[in-house]
Amino acid sequence: MRRALIEQLYPLCRSITGEGTRQTLHLLQQQIPLAIRDVASGTAVLDWTVPDEWNIRDGYIATTSGQRVVDFRKHTLHVVSYSVPVKQRISREVLANHVHWLDDHPSWIPYRTSYYNKTWGFCLTKQQWDAMTDPEYDVCIDATLAPGDLCYGELLLAGRSSQEFVFTAHVCHPSLANDNLSGIAVATELASRLAQRAHHYSYRFLFIPGTIGSLTWLAANRERWSAIRGGMSLVCLGDARPLTYKASLHGSSMIDRAARQVLGRRDRGDQVIEFFPFGYDERQFNSPGIAIPFGSLMRGQHGQFPEYHTSADSLEFISDAQLADAVDACEAICAALDTDRCFKNLAPYGEPQLGRRGIYRAMGGTSGLGDLSTAMLWVLQLSDGQRTVTEIVERSKMPDDVIRRAVQLLQDNQLIG
Amino acid sequence: MRRALIEQLYPLCRSITGEGTRQTLHLLQQQIPLAIRDVASGTAVLDWTVPDEWNIRDGYIATTSGQRVVDFRKHTLHVVSYSVPVKQRISREVLANHVHWLDDHPSWIPYRTSYYNKTWGFCLTKQQWDAMTDPEYDVCIDATLAPGDLCYGELLLAGRSSQEFVFTAHVCHPSLANDNLSGIAVATELASRLAQRAHHYSYRFLFIPGTIGSLTWLAANRERWSAIRGGMSLVCLGDARPLTYKASLHGSSMIDRAARQVLGRRDRGDQVIEFFPFGYDERQFNSPGIAIPFGSLMRGQHGQFPEYHTSADSLEFISDAQLADAVDACEAICAALDTDRCFKNLAPYGEPQLGRRGIYRAMGGTSGLGDLSTAMLWVLQLSDGQRTVTEIVERSKMPDDVIRRAVQLLQDNQLIG
Amino acid sequence: MRRALIEQLYPLCRSITGEGTRQTLHLLQQQIPLAIRDVASGTAVLDWTVPDEWNIRDGYIATTSGQRVVDFRKHTLHVVSYSVPVKQRISREVLANHVHWLDDHPSWIPYRTSYYNKTWGFCLTKQQWDAMTDPEYDVCIDATLAPGDLCYGELLLAGRSSQEFVFTAHVCHPSLANDNLSGIAVATELASRLAQRAHHYSYRFLFIPGTIGSLTWLAANRERWSAIRGGMSLVCLGDARPLTYKASLHGSSMIDRAARQVLGRRDRGDQVIEFFPFGYDERQFNSPGIAIPFGSLMRGQHGQFPEYHTSADSLEFISDAQLADAVDACEAICAALDTDRCFKNLAPYGEPQLGRRGIYRAMGGTSGLGDLSTAMLWVLQLSDGQRTVTEIVERSKMPDDVIRRAVQLLQDNQLIG
Repeated sequence: MRRALIEQLYPLCRSITGEGTRQTLHLLQQQIPLAIRDVASGTAVLDWTVPDEWNIRDGYIATTSGQRVVDFRKHTLHVVSYSVPVKQRISREVLANHVHWLDDHPSWIPYRTSYYNKTWGFCLTKQQWDAMTDPEYDVCIDATLAPGDLCYGELLLAGRSSQEFVFTAHVCHPSLANDNLSGIAVATELASRLAQRAHHYSYRFLFIPGTIGSLTWLAANRERWSAIRGGMSLVCLGDARPLTYKASLHGSSMIDRAARQVLGRRDRGDQVIEFFPFGYDERQFNSPGIAIPFGSLMRGQHGQFPEYHTSADSLEFISDAQLADAVDACEAICAALDTDRCFKNLAPYGEPQLGRRGIYRAMGGTSGLGDLSTAMLWVLQLSDGQRTVTEIVERSKMPDDVIRRAVQLLQDNQLIG
Repeated sequence: MRRALIEQLYPLCRSITGEGTRQTLHLLQQQIPLAIRDVASGTAVLDWTVPDEWNIRDGYIATTSGQRVVDFRKHTLHVVSYSVPVKQRISREVLANHVHWLDDHPSWIPYRTSYYNKTWGFCLTKQQWDAMTDPEYDVCIDATLAPGDLCYGELLLAGRSSQEFVFTAHVCHPSLANDNLSGIAVATELASRLAQRAHHYSYRFLFIPGTIGSLTWLAANRERWSAIRGGMSLVCLGDARPLTYKASLHGSSMIDRAARQVLGRRDRGDQVIEFFPFGYDERQFNSPGIAIPFGSLMRGQHGQFPEYHTSADSLEFISDAQLADAVDACEAICAALDTDRCFKNLAPYGEPQLGRRGIYRAMGGTSGLGDLSTAMLWVLQLSDGQRTVTEIVERSKMPDDVIRRAVQLLQDNQLIG
Repeated sequence: MRRALIEQLYPLCRSITGEGTRQTLHLLQQQIPLAIRDVASGTAVLDWTVPDEWNIRDGYIATTSGQRVVDFRKHTLHVVSYSVPVKQRISREVLANHVHWLDDHPSWIPYRTSYYNKTWGFCLTKQQWDAMTDPEYDVCIDATLAPGDLCYGELLLAGRSSQEFVFTAHVCHPSLANDNLSGIAVATELASRLAQRAHHYSYRFLFIPGTIGSLTWLAANRERWSAIRGGMSLVCLGDARPLTYKASLHGSSMIDRAARQVLGRRDRGDQVIEFFPFGYDERQFNSPGIAIPFGSLMRGQHGQFPEYHTSADSLEFISDAQLADAVDACEAICAALDTDRCFKNLAPYGEPQLGRRGIYRAMGGTSGLGDLSTAMLWVLQLSDGQRTVTEIVERSKMPDDVIRRAVQLLQDNQLIG
């Protein structure tokens, strides 16, 4: 399902607005019950404004004899995203100001955008450019940039609590597999799995264009800010590297502790790195006025692998096994989060009599308690309404699953709540 | 005195209630002016209830020809504590469900209890059990389990301040020397020594049965909770190991800092370990609703030495020298506590003129202050009403006794208070 | 200028009061517009009282035939500072109680004071004392100790903010070059440099006698205490050692962070040491009732170099290059302080659109932001009104100057304030 979804989405030309993005969301609706929201161009969203909608039908550089040497229909990366329309014959010299290629990788097409500066351009391989020796070319970008809508997808999986965690994936990248179709695929499957069972917290999935997407959602949902305990962006999850969790600005919030614990016990070379203020949606959620602890889960890091933002970030660059492994990790993080909260010991004066409730070993005098009894004592001891379960795991140094079973047992016996 | 006391107490069959415990307390009254409190069976104490009183007169397993092969009169450990009465002839096969021995130590008798499950049982050596090959035996436990009292001993040594520290020792273990007659002996001598001099804080000594004893005292003394600055349980202090201080849940309260400092400077291989929520009375005092920082001082650790809860924890297992060393350490901890509190600099604006008060070196220009002058400056500098003297010792890295002399001198001169 | 000033000041006999100190301040007025304040003897200053003014005209030990063997006119150190007047013939034996020399350094004169004990004395080389074998000598100290004034110099360089930082130098040491004419020279040049440009904070320079000087100023300026964000004493800055910054009691206040950063990036073996409650004016400013974070910048440490408080702390002991280097370091610390404050992000909900304001790279998709863009994102992210710029430098691990340029750019664009 993951890989198949990505293959289906790969050819579409997504951008921060436009039909490619809309079609992407419609295809996702076949997997999960996504709501699609439209926000009109010109809408003020925090410090920004929703831009005009961009739609492209064709784009090429052709010889004066009509032979296409660079063709948008062959690869969506060939046209700089948000290029204004153009159709003219120009000299190679002038064209040189409008083309982008990579010196280091002569057979790769780079990915470039110009959302907020009105210009046009083509991306091509260095080999293509070197082979273009004619004095003049015909350039055409058959695109429109006009008032329309920014659209994004949203799915809320309501839990018993209205407190929520947010996962985001970007839907603005054209034919790039790892960045960020992998995030879309992982988020989609994670949502499918979570939808199949009851949970304590609510989980929200946002399929949004980068930057302007999270700003748009945040602007429209101010009343939700205080209910969001944390979240993470899902990015570049299909390549061969181990997982990297980039912590939130807070650094030790619930989502950070859950991710650190899950990655720590996977024993696959995963790592946790500190927050920095560029990257993906975490930039917006962690901003000082919003202050929602927001991390990011990835394999290859933003700008740190050579294939990043080039045509080499293709279907071959990602594997289904790595995608599946990322979904598993996310699910484990959700499981850790879902049983994580600050409980209060309801019999806090001394130790409650566990034996009377049938949840304590019968015979005294032996030296060891079972692990579960020990875990119950830890949970009772530390449940002062201030510490989360994950903090109790850390302090007790006991296995996560034993502590969580103790939590369940104590809840069932009305000893914590 | 310490060892003699233990020899006197060793043969008595103590439990969480009953005559053995009562006699123990009466013997302690010959040493220190202990008040003995009786709390009736059935009294609700926090989440628990005071159990029926258990008294045992005799207990044995005998051959059908009347020869005792296991005899309570030879060792109190032979009967599972709180066994219900029994007198019958049973098959060896049925008896097997009621006997306890140690595979690893064929000549030791284990110690077992069943306070809250109504059953009966015998503890014996593996050698004894292996030699018992008859098809049938007569078993007899001549005990009563009936409404009565839980009794404990209490001694308050009032200081100038009503703020107090609490020391506890268990009086519920039968013929076991280290666990916990050693604690009784150390607590008794510590109380004797402290009674001979004036002190700032009040010190309370509790001789109580495990778990139910602290719960009973805490339930009856709720109004004292807020006046207790900390405390520690005294356990397993007679064996050959160096001292271990188990910190309170808080971890850096006054009692923790005092114990850490005293043990640190003794240079005898003592150690400080972190809190965990099983062990002795610290379980109750540190509970979230009570939250009194309570540590534990021991040598052999709870469940961590082979003789623990067996007949090998005998008079030979402990030495008077180790008991004396433990009393010395406790006394040093009390001395550290007694001069420890948060002083406020009473001349806090700039440096007070020590010279005018005759407590500063006379001649200026030499490079070194005396240690005492330096210590006075540290104490004045850090006495902001928030830091304890022990914290000042830590921060200044000066010898404890010099800082405490400086504290005294500054108090005498009304410069701190 | 630095060295010349010190040469001019060196011969004067300064003390905590008197003409030598007054002349010193008048000479400083030729360099910077210092106000000279007089505070009458007997004035209560916090826990102290301003002492009588001490003035000395002559002092000697002479043979009974009139030959001076120790002569104040040859070195101001020869008379114990604040000696009461004396003129008498005494035995060598009695004289021995009034003389000070150094066993370890037979050719050096020590520096001694007796401000608050009425006595008299001479300091001389061991060689001098050993050569004095007559049975009797004539001693004379032609000094007066009478009501007068304590005087100190003060210069406030007002900034846009009334919040201020304070630099102090001592004017009470007689002919000692490093301790503390070097501090006077560095403070004077630093004040000259700062006076030539606008600054955010106000900077106050105090040229004061040790201890009683800061107490006097503090007593007279209680209403300023809350406006002082920090400060440092400038001491022993001319010798050959690298710089040592002694942190304030607080340890991580603005002045501490600025000094730590500047010294850290100089790469000259400078060090930062922890606070201790003796030394110079930091004793007074850090006291618990005043609690102004006050550090100290030095080379040779208080009492830690052999020449300290001896005639070997002469003009040869210091170099102009080291003084200049110290002024540079102070200036860099002031530069760091002056752009250091807690900014608030004025567009705190998500990321402000930097592109719209022309302060962001134009083309998207490339992997690296420029350093300046990255720095702007860090500053926006962390400007929550609680963190200083210096803390942002620490957290971002970016170069100080880039962060400060980002701060400026964001201020110019009304994005932080």
